[in-house]
Amino acid sequence: MKVVLHTAWANVDRWIAELREQAPDIELRLSSDIGDPAEIDAALVWQPPAGFFEGMTRLRLVQVLGAGIDALVRSGVALPENVPLARLVDPLMSQRMAEYALHGVMRFHRRFDLYERQQQAALWERHFHDDPAEIGVGIMGVGEIGMTTAELLRKVGYDVFGWSRSPRPAAPVKVYAGREELPEFLARCRILVCILPLTGETRGIIDRETLALMPKGSFVINVARGPHVVVDDLLAALDSGRLEGAMLDVFDEEPLPSASPLWSHPKVLVTPHAGAITNPRTAMAIIVEQLRRIERGETPANLVDLERGY
Amino acid sequence: MKVVLHTAWANVDRWIAELREQAPDIELRLSSDIGDPAEIDAALVWQPPAGFFEGMTRLRLVQVLGAGIDALVRSGVALPENVPLARLVDPLMSQRMAEYALHGVMRFHRRFDLYERQQQAALWERHFHDDPAEIGVGIMGVGEIGMTTAELLRKVGYDVFGWSRSPRPAAPVKVYAGREELPEFLARCRILVCILPLTGETRGIIDRETLALMPKGSFVINVARGPHVVVDDLLAALDSGRLEGAMLDVFDEEPLPSASPLWSHPKVLVTPHAGAITNPRTAMAIIVEQLRRIERGETPANLVDLERGY
Repeated sequence: MKVVLHTAWANVDRWIAELREQAPDIELRLSSDIGDPAEIDAALVWQPPAGFFEGMTRLRLVQVLGAGIDALVRSGVALPENVPLARLVDPLMSQRMAEYALHGVMRFHRRFDLYERQQQAALWERHFHDDPAEIGVGIMGVGEIGMTTAELLRKVGYDVFGWSRSPRPAAPVKVYAGREELPEFLARCRILVCILPLTGETRGIIDRETLALMPKGSFVINVARGPHVVVDDLLAALDSGRLEGAMLDVFDEEPLPSASPLWSHPKVLVTPHAGAITNPRTAMAIIVEQLRRIERGETPANLVDLERGY
Repeated sequence: MKVVLHTAWANVDRWIAELREQAPDIELRLSSDIGDPAEIDAALVWQPPAGFFEGMTRLRLVQVLGAGIDALVRSGVALPENVPLARLVDPLMSQRMAEYALHGVMRFHRRFDLYERQQQAALWERHFHDDPAEIGVGIMGVGEIGMTTAELLRKVGYDVFGWSRSPRPAAPVKVYAGREELPEFLARCRILVCILPLTGETRGIIDRETLALMPKGSFVINVARGPHVVVDDLLAALDSGRLEGAMLDVFDEEPLPSASPLWSHPKVLVTPHAGAITNPRTAMAIIVEQLRRIERGETPANLVDLERGY
């Protein structure tokens, strides 16, 4: 089996080393030295260049190196027709993401955001806290990561519910579905956690209208993709007091430009897309299993429906 | 039954209102208008003045309004002999304290402390995170609050263990016991959480020697009492790199004086004794049950051994 790897990530060497160690029988080619493209069985990619897949007539799998395919779509590369396209779903990464969200929820529930600001002024002032069961936490997007997050938040006692594109009657938490139920969902959100895939439907979903439907003094946590949030609307809601705080891990442009007003806004915590940093070891183990599946003639897991966008 | 209440807390009216609502048959007297002290059956106190208990010959219970009796001891008031002395043990408050500790542990595990500092410089830099199972969290003090904390941390996946004055073979986590096992305990602490009662033995327990036994680049969270930590030793450990961060909720003097170097230290998060803010409603329900016990001639719960100090 012959596999090509393309990513511009700084730690690409770790990915290469993991593949060589975990599957020494697989022939790895780098995109800089691809040889005959007609020999390639599978491509492991993150934002490949235009024309990358040309001539890969034997290709049986395009495996994205992340949980979302938006970067691939955005790169504008022509995808090969009738070749399975898979996302990377690493349960450990879902756990890391859930921890990020839990930390953010506790930060706002217990007002550590205020204590940090108070410290800068040497101000000693206590803020009474409710029981977690009284804090409504709404998860937008209840796929693998969203459900892992909902379960972790429930363990700690929060009042968790979800929102999804389509109904999820079997979900362990109440899930509101579709645009019709969005207002009811938002009205319950003391804290909103966005874990949606980025699609044409979800782009800009956290905008002025959405924020206006949340309770006064509520909070937003975005661990999904930057374009889910209309930043100007978010800033306006923070300044009007509609929102009391925001924790943002993802941005329209990353790294977040130093001129962005988000960096210095007192009610915003910026983190550098650190919700779940992919672990090359566990991620490559999952990818190798995908390669073994096509070797055995089986269907790879976590296939993407391009029309739906995830 | 006649009960006297003494506290200088700003929200004393809420405590009074709760007692009147929850037990209208109990006659409440304030310390400013105590009447005949020989009529008092029970005293609910936080730092009562000298001579407060004089003449209370009928007294059957001294109920402290907090989890620790150190404030009562420090007040220097002469305690009546042979009268049961009880701490306030509110399971809800143990939960709140455990949440504080969990938030602190996640803060250091996921380096939100660094991300906050980076934000001030508009610096985008990711820090790789281990799995919680690889993070050793040591709980000093495994009473009601310590055990609640250990359980919550375990639910989130941390490698939790405890340290106690005396062995606890039945505890659900490994508990190191006594001074002999303290070095072994400390060597495993990537993050140390102090939830000890303040006694002659535990005063100053987090000092230069203790900190020197922790791994390089570790963290301290103190939610117990200020005097558990020797502040100068803590600052020296932070500045030498032995410690990578500290989160402190309690201080020798509270409110923390504005001249304290802790307020402005970049590696210290100061919170205003907010680990668990007592809820007068749930706390008074527990106190009323204590009063009912002495009314029925039963032994009140959570009695203090003055010699032991908790």
